[in-house]
Amino acid sequence: MSESPAGAGPPAAAPAAHMTAHVVRDGGVRDEVAVEEPLEIRVDGAPLTVTMRTPGHDEELALGFLHGEGLIAGAAPAPAAGPTADLAANVVEVAGPLLRDPGARRFYTTSSCGVCGKGALDEVAVAAPPAAPGPLVSRALLADLPERLRQPAFARTGGLHATGLFDADGELLLVREDVGRHNAMDKVIGRALLDGLLPLHGRILCVSGRLSFELVQKAAVAGAPLLVGVGAPSSLAVELAADRGMTLCGFARGDGRVNVYTGAERVAA
Amino acid sequence: MSESPAGAGPPAAAPAAHMTAHVVRDGGVRDEVAVEEPLEIRVDGAPLTVTMRTPGHDEELALGFLHGEGLIAGAAPAPAAGPTADLAANVVEVAGPLLRDPGARRFYTTSSCGVCGKGALDEVAVAAPPAAPGPLVSRALLADLPERLRQPAFARTGGLHATGLFDADGELLLVREDVGRHNAMDKVIGRALLDGLLPLHGRILCVSGRLSFELVQKAAVAGAPLLVGVGAPSSLAVELAADRGMTLCGFARGDGRVNVYTGAERVAA
Repeated sequence: MSESPAGAGPPAAAPAAHMTAHVVRDGGVRDEVAVEEPLEIRVDGAPLTVTMRTPGHDEELALGFLHGEGLIAGAAPAPAAGPTADLAANVVEVAGPLLRDPGARRFYTTSSCGVCGKGALDEVAVAAPPAAPGPLVSRALLADLPERLRQPAFARTGGLHATGLFDADGELLLVREDVGRHNAMDKVIGRALLDGLLPLHGRILCVSGRLSFELVQKAAVAGAPLLVGVGAPSSLAVELAADRGMTLCGFARGDGRVNVYTGAERVAA
Repeated sequence: MSESPAGAGPPAAAPAAHMTAHVVRDGGVRDEVAVEEPLEIRVDGAPLTVTMRTPGHDEELALGFLHGEGLIAGAAPAPAAGPTADLAANVVEVAGPLLRDPGARRFYTTSSCGVCGKGALDEVAVAAPPAAPGPLVSRALLADLPERLRQPAFARTGGLHATGLFDADGELLLVREDVGRHNAMDKVIGRALLDGLLPLHGRILCVSGRLSFELVQKAAVAGAPLLVGVGAPSSLAVELAADRGMTLCGFARGDGRVNVYTGAERVAA
């Protein structure tokens, strides 16, 4: 797995230096802020969605997003993705084939029981088999993961979410930062897809913020058995993790404390 | 303006008691978490979008969302909004007429220059005139607003964003909490729309988190001259606030410190 664009995948659309910009605020102070710009994701030439994101690793973002929606098989070679010729900076083009028509709405809008939490869980189950058993990880290690996330751009701006991919020993394999928490997760999973590392059996995902349903959905579809967050989980995040047999941990702090909401059998005292 | 559903608008679809739920985590500890469920917004019977939100004040959320997209005129009577008969819990129905076809994509996907930051600014400008002059507010008051937000459900769950509407003296007029930061802002603006309080000239909006482009967009379209956040702004948030003549403040802390990124003429020392 590679942190640099020189890895197995196509080159990043923007260098990391474009992730932050400077503004001048009151008193003439020069502040560094996180860059936010729209990105349009196209599939076979047709616009699919637009997300506000921090530039860089755009093809990872597109592939990770499509994977989380259940549109890409993790084991197969990844579809081609890269910038378009005409609007290279803020459009990423994915060449199929995908598993199904990407024009279909997101999971929870197509559930058979209408729009409800149970329907949302059912839809994720179609794309995500129950999590594989293991690994066994110590509580102290899980609590320490946020400290290991290393967010160089966040440290300068205070404005970026991060997702990190760790092995079961707590070694950081990959980290991505973005103004959008879902984008950071998509970029990590897109990179893993390009590197042939899906499903993420035996791995741990860690996010810098709160644990929403959509973050658990993306981790579940990627096959990650453990998901750790610095912040609080929502009700539907806990329900989905329980439904898929995942270990969900929130309020991970550097002082050894972490709340284990589901899948405690993977957590050693 | 009313905090309760007994105000000018239709009753809320869910009582505030449904905003949190209990889960049992490791060690048998009973934890309170924020409820997250899908909400489908329909316009004249046609599904428009689905958002993951915390139940309650759903009609405010729908109206505020449509207003932020430039689909509702703030000065006119609000369209009717309320739960549907068949799927009352998680579907909200809005009866038009709207200003334009709601099937059109969001602002930054329809910009004339393609997908770019400049295009996104241009599109917001169509729906949001430049902010009106004033009011003049002290730096100390702006820095203190997060302390005045009062988040009863957040205090119990740690999992909810909030948006507060304040007058120029710092009095809290209205606050809404939600797992989604955009939803909390939409609910406040939807309530203001129902109460005939738009545009929000002379008012201050304050959010509990970071300042994204979309939050500034919603505040701009609602006519709020000042927007304050506890967290960092993004580059495009600063650009949009400058473009619309708004005052944008970040990193507001209880100790009297706040960064003023744009519109410093409204901030008194």
